[in-house]
Amino acid sequence: MRVDVAFTPGEEAAAHVGIVVDVIRATSSIAQALASGYERVLCCAEIEEARLLRAELGDEAVVGGERQAVVVEGFDVGASPREFAEAPKAKTLILTTTNGTRAILTAASRCDVVLLGSLLNVSAVARAARRAGGDVAIICSGFQGAFALDDAYCAGRIVEALGGERSDAAIAAAVVSAAWPDPLQGLNARTYGPPGLEADIEFCAQVDLLDVAPVLSRMIGTAAEIRSEQ
Amino acid sequence: MRVDVAFTPGEEAAAHVGIVVDVIRATSSIAQALASGYERVLCCAEIEEARLLRAELGDEAVVGGERQAVVVEGFDVGASPREFAEAPKAKTLILTTTNGTRAILTAASRCDVVLLGSLLNVSAVARAARRAGGDVAIICSGFQGAFALDDAYCAGRIVEALGGERSDAAIAAAVVSAAWPDPLQGLNARTYGPPGLEADIEFCAQVDLLDVAPVLSRMIGTAAEIRSEQ
Repeated sequence: MRVDVAFTPGEEAAAHVGIVVDVIRATSSIAQALASGYERVLCCAEIEEARLLRAELGDEAVVGGERQAVVVEGFDVGASPREFAEAPKAKTLILTTTNGTRAILTAASRCDVVLLGSLLNVSAVARAARRAGGDVAIICSGFQGAFALDDAYCAGRIVEALGGERSDAAIAAAVVSAAWPDPLQGLNARTYGPPGLEADIEFCAQVDLLDVAPVLSRMIGTAAEIRSEQ
Repeated sequence: MRVDVAFTPGEEAAAHVGIVVDVIRATSSIAQALASGYERVLCCAEIEEARLLRAELGDEAVVGGERQAVVVEGFDVGASPREFAEAPKAKTLILTTTNGTRAILTAASRCDVVLLGSLLNVSAVARAARRAGGDVAIICSGFQGAFALDDAYCAGRIVEALGGERSDAAIAAAVVSAAWPDPLQGLNARTYGPPGLEADIEFCAQVDLLDVAPVLSRMIGTAAEIRSEQ
């Protein structure tokens, strides 16, 4: 198994298995929602698309999303993983995110199997990737097209958990994660992002809290349907 | 001064000052040639372009280049920095490279001042960047569009020499360089490239051997004219 890392979705990493990382907060929130019992998460890039899906599905679904850390008007919940740690409020969670969703769509165009990784589920996602067989590309969502240290940090943790033969970028990601043995310090080493996420970052820094491997099951329009890998 | 790093030319890093890094071997060879007394290096992406320039300039110039570590037929020299360590054979060195030249052209499109960095001239290029003032983007040539560990390693050394405020990618580059205190081990940590470069890599691993800061002076057609920054 060869393991590669794309630090931004713009890089051309491709492999049989793609693992998308948007550790603060899309992939952490999705892992938590599925672990808590949501049957699926529909991941949308646009607010309007999420609104339309919510209207179509009615009370079968709740819709979550924030922009600049403020809950979108008319939405049921925000996008914090802590909001999804309790019993599910419906069968389906519709979640709108920007960087994370874009990376999922990129991965879907290049990889046969698309898993979602975060610190919360490092071991579970590595196990699922090994089960799927073949080479692995870890695709970091990054921030506005650029390198994001928190995603690179999480990618390095997944590289370590996977084993296998490493590309240059995979070696670098492992070096980055080794530089911060404390995962909270690793996430906080990033330089970007709005204030007010401190409690969420602390939550997202919990390694292997969850035994769930979210996997892209299909596209519904432009929304990515994510379920638990069985 | 804000310091950013693009690990591949495809990333959109832009700043007043760009420092291009292609440590094995374009930027190392150019630094060595200028330090040895060549007045300028004309850096071309294509072999045919280099041939035409050589024909035009006659004995004022020598032309160097390799493909897969073999000297191009009809060329005067290869592309090894060790070949340029002796007295210059002409006023002008025409050099054809692939990744490095592409990165220089990318930097020229985004930055006002374009310097060329390598381990051979870390301190000199950092001094020149500070003298030019403003923010700095270190643009790694990478390998075939992807992350290359040797360039990231060198970028991290330049980040350390520059000081200033670091982007996420600049923090990561510094972490990568700190992981290999021995620069030869840092360069050899890369996973790609043809065999037969061992002596060149050892040469390129010498930190601050040269007190020269190569700078893009102008474009001549599609060739980048590089001179010593005064």
